Amino acid sequence: MLGTAVLILLGTGVVANQVLKNTLGNSTGFLFVNVGWAFAVFTGASIADPSGAHLNPAVTLGLAIADKTPWGNVPVYVLGQMVGAIIGAMLCWATYKLQFDTHDEPQNTLGIFSTGPTVPNKPWNLVSEVIGTFVLVAWILLSPGAKVGADGAVPTFGNSALGYAAVAFVVLVIGTSLGGPTGYAINPARDLGPRIAYAFLMPIRNKGNANWGYSWVPVVGPLVGGALAALLYLVLPV
Amino acid sequence: MLGTAVLILLGTGVVANQVLKNTLGNSTGFLFVNVGWAFAVFTGASIADPSGAHLNPAVTLGLAIADKTPWGNVPVYVLGQMVGAIIGAMLCWATYKLQFDTHDEPQNTLGIFSTGPTVPNKPWNLVSEVIGTFVLVAWILLSPGAKVGADGAVPTFGNSALGYAAVAFVVLVIGTSLGGPTGYAINPARDLGPRIAYAFLMPIRNKGNANWGYSWVPVVGPLVGGALAALLYLVLPV
Amino acid sequence: MLGTAVLILLGTGVVANQVLKNTLGNSTGFLFVNVGWAFAVFTGASIADPSGAHLNPAVTLGLAIADKTPWGNVPVYVLGQMVGAIIGAMLCWATYKLQFDTHDEPQNTLGIFSTGPTVPNKPWNLVSEVIGTFVLVAWILLSPGAKVGADGAVPTFGNSALGYAAVAFVVLVIGTSLGGPTGYAINPARDLGPRIAYAFLMPIRNKGNANWGYSWVPVVGPLVGGALAALLYLVLPV
Amino acid sequence: MLGTAVLILLGTGVVANQVLKNTLGNSTGFLFVNVGWAFAVFTGASIADPSGAHLNPAVTLGLAIADKTPWGNVPVYVLGQMVGAIIGAMLCWATYKLQFDTHDEPQNTLGIFSTGPTVPNKPWNLVSEVIGTFVLVAWILLSPGAKVGADGAVPTFGNSALGYAAVAFVVLVIGTSLGGPTGYAINPARDLGPRIAYAFLMPIRNKGNANWGYSWVPVVGPLVGGALAALLYLVLPV
Repeated sequence: MLGTAVLILLGTGVVANQVLKNTLGNSTGFLFVNVGWAFAVFTGASIADPSGAHLNPAVTLGLAIADKTPWGNVPVYVLGQMVGAIIGAMLCWATYKLQFDTHDEPQNTLGIFSTGPTVPNKPWNLVSEVIGTFVLVAWILLSPGAKVGADGAVPTFGNSALGYAAVAFVVLVIGTSLGGPTGYAINPARDLGPRIAYAFLMPIRNKGNANWGYSWVPVVGPLVGGALAALLYLVLPV
Repeated sequence: MLGTAVLILLGTGVVANQVLKNTLGNSTGFLFVNVGWAFAVFTGASIADPSGAHLNPAVTLGLAIADKTPWGNVPVYVLGQMVGAIIGAMLCWATYKLQFDTHDEPQNTLGIFSTGPTVPNKPWNLVSEVIGTFVLVAWILLSPGAKVGADGAVPTFGNSALGYAAVAFVVLVIGTSLGGPTGYAINPARDLGPRIAYAFLMPIRNKGNANWGYSWVPVVGPLVGGALAALLYLVLPV
Repeated sequence: MLGTAVLILLGTGVVANQVLKNTLGNSTGFLFVNVGWAFAVFTGASIADPSGAHLNPAVTLGLAIADKTPWGNVPVYVLGQMVGAIIGAMLCWATYKLQFDTHDEPQNTLGIFSTGPTVPNKPWNLVSEVIGTFVLVAWILLSPGAKVGADGAVPTFGNSALGYAAVAFVVLVIGTSLGGPTGYAINPARDLGPRIAYAFLMPIRNKGNANWGYSWVPVVGPLVGGALAALLYLVLPV
Repeated sequence: MLGTAVLILLGTGVVANQVLKNTLGNSTGFLFVNVGWAFAVFTGASIADPSGAHLNPAVTLGLAIADKTPWGNVPVYVLGQMVGAIIGAMLCWATYKLQFDTHDEPQNTLGIFSTGPTVPNKPWNLVSEVIGTFVLVAWILLSPGAKVGADGAVPTFGNSALGYAAVAFVVLVIGTSLGGPTGYAINPARDLGPRIAYAFLMPIRNKGNANWGYSWVPVVGPLVGGALAALLYLVLPV
């Protein structure tokens, strides 16, 4: 839970820094956002190390299907991920409270917390999220580190600092390369938790709506992508 | 094959994100593209680890000449690389399908999948590709890790996460430093596979031609560069 | 002391490069600044390794509360950090002396050395600094490396190069993600030492005032954040 | 020699990509240049590993003063560094030959190969080069890895991939933070070798002069900085 809170605080934080007007990072660019999210995963995963670094329900589901995580643990992990994501989003709001107050387009602040499509079309948006999450979970299951650290959500490569750096590099490239169409949720908790926080908890004046019509795409897409990667893993003779 | 598919998906993906209009990464810059390709190699190589991380016919050729890979394995590797590259390019198209549909210059989309020269001149374009690939293969053969992990296409440095990070750093700098004239194919499969996919498989409206007249340069150049590096390795008293 | 001097030289140097007019790095962007500070920490921490890599009074305080550093060492560490920070700031001034002389807005150069808020409001600026430092110190105490290297200010992860790279990655993301509102001092010595140097030591013509009214925020905020993280650590069953 | 050739090819290559008009990397920014040089060092140092990774006369001098390298080896190393730098610069010219031919300001191409001051003033330019090189050599001598790998020019940290990554990070931050005034030669061979190649060997039409009046600054400054760092090392009780 603490790990997901830190992940979401740092991940939504870099988008706030990029999007909001009165910040030092305003309009730095998409690589800036990718770097922020990548090392948000590094930091969140290190902090969550004692509980196996489960930060993402799509990864947890994939590992359960691949028989790497007991199914009985899944509900607790997912609950912790959702609560952590909501706490992290609230901390991001607190960090940037003055910037939210002075932003000139308060209605356009949902994108700081949750993803949305640049070209709305739910089936193809779903495809983008499925492919992005498939790469993440396939990498976790197939990379050589997976054989070493079978009891956590991140390959350890024999040294946790290397393992968390490696997953950060993979998240970095998923962002640069597959994040263009939908903002790469690739994690249901990362998207739904902050959306709930935005809709119900944050006192932002004139804030926009939470786009609930789209909200199932970044939940279902990652779960499908994670499950497909796990099925591939079970079929491959690795 | 899976590793090359992931490499090409992520590598062409970052260019799609950079080039296409309705993306979050549009016009981020060349460093963004270099970072994307570098960590595409990281991710693809990790996934291909069980089969020795052979993702590049020019590297495979160099290793065969240097007597590090049996010649008998070369055809299978190259076939897998080509099929993987075609699959990866198709997945990139699927990820960015809506962006291709709404792009305002559909005829200028070949560059997402295959390289081309900024100043067309085949002999000197060939020189650029030879030099870029020479650096890659010379590094693979001469770096200290090469002595350790002699049975794969990437030096392991005693730990595969370090080895794949190291090759990503080398690909990053080849991109920043030698990629300016021709877009650093430095890999025949990386260029020819997606070119075939673009020409024959992708349903992009009003797409441009596949520039077949140039297509042999990013095939021959990397093979020559890889072979020269291997010959240097055989001559040096290392 | 030497480590903090190098940290501050490199950290304030990247801001000078970004802000001053006649430099090669002018207006490169916030990611540039974040990268500079992150690897300034890498370099400063490596150099300070023999004395435990204590570069930050907020971290030193957190480690003392968490019973990881003897309270008796705290005054010496903090004194060394302050003296080092002043020396580093003076070396930055010497490196960029010609650029300070030819800068067109000499009154706006405090920001090179010390942080300031984009939206002034001391309570909420304090919140930003508390949250940023909390993440840093919580990561130091909770990451798996912390169990290994209990006698220094940076987790070692079994190898000091990995440990210093890891802390650089965390500082990188704190910058990208939480540095937007106040410039992420997250270190009292990093802010107060250069402010003293700017106010009393640097012969910059027409320099601005040192904004003493704000100066307590980046001192108190980091100390509170570090202390809160240490209290969390003592409460958690890790 | 091969290592320095690769270093200079990749290092001058990224500047060519940034400066020349008909490249994919034109005007990407100073961080792009810093990243290119940093990983040019990574690649060159790995390739030069068998001969101790000596790529820089200022480092070689510092190690000789600090009694880490026999004085008898210094002339051979420096000769190899100079020859390698000239070869690397010529390969960079070959890679970008078409871009040099079509560049609109051929007289402004010296900066691709050799450094120059943004504000000319030889004493203070010298100070910038002394400080930059001092940080590099002090880090090499004082970082914990220095104790491990005492027989090479780069700390190994117990694993050469880590050691070369670490030195790349340090060169990255020296560039971002201290490279603004003079372009951070911090290496006499890196500056003088390509200057000789530019002046006497390259067939660039209407090329500018080689600015010989400044050429001693990036030779003397780094040597002084390296020597000062070695003297500090000998004085410190490490």
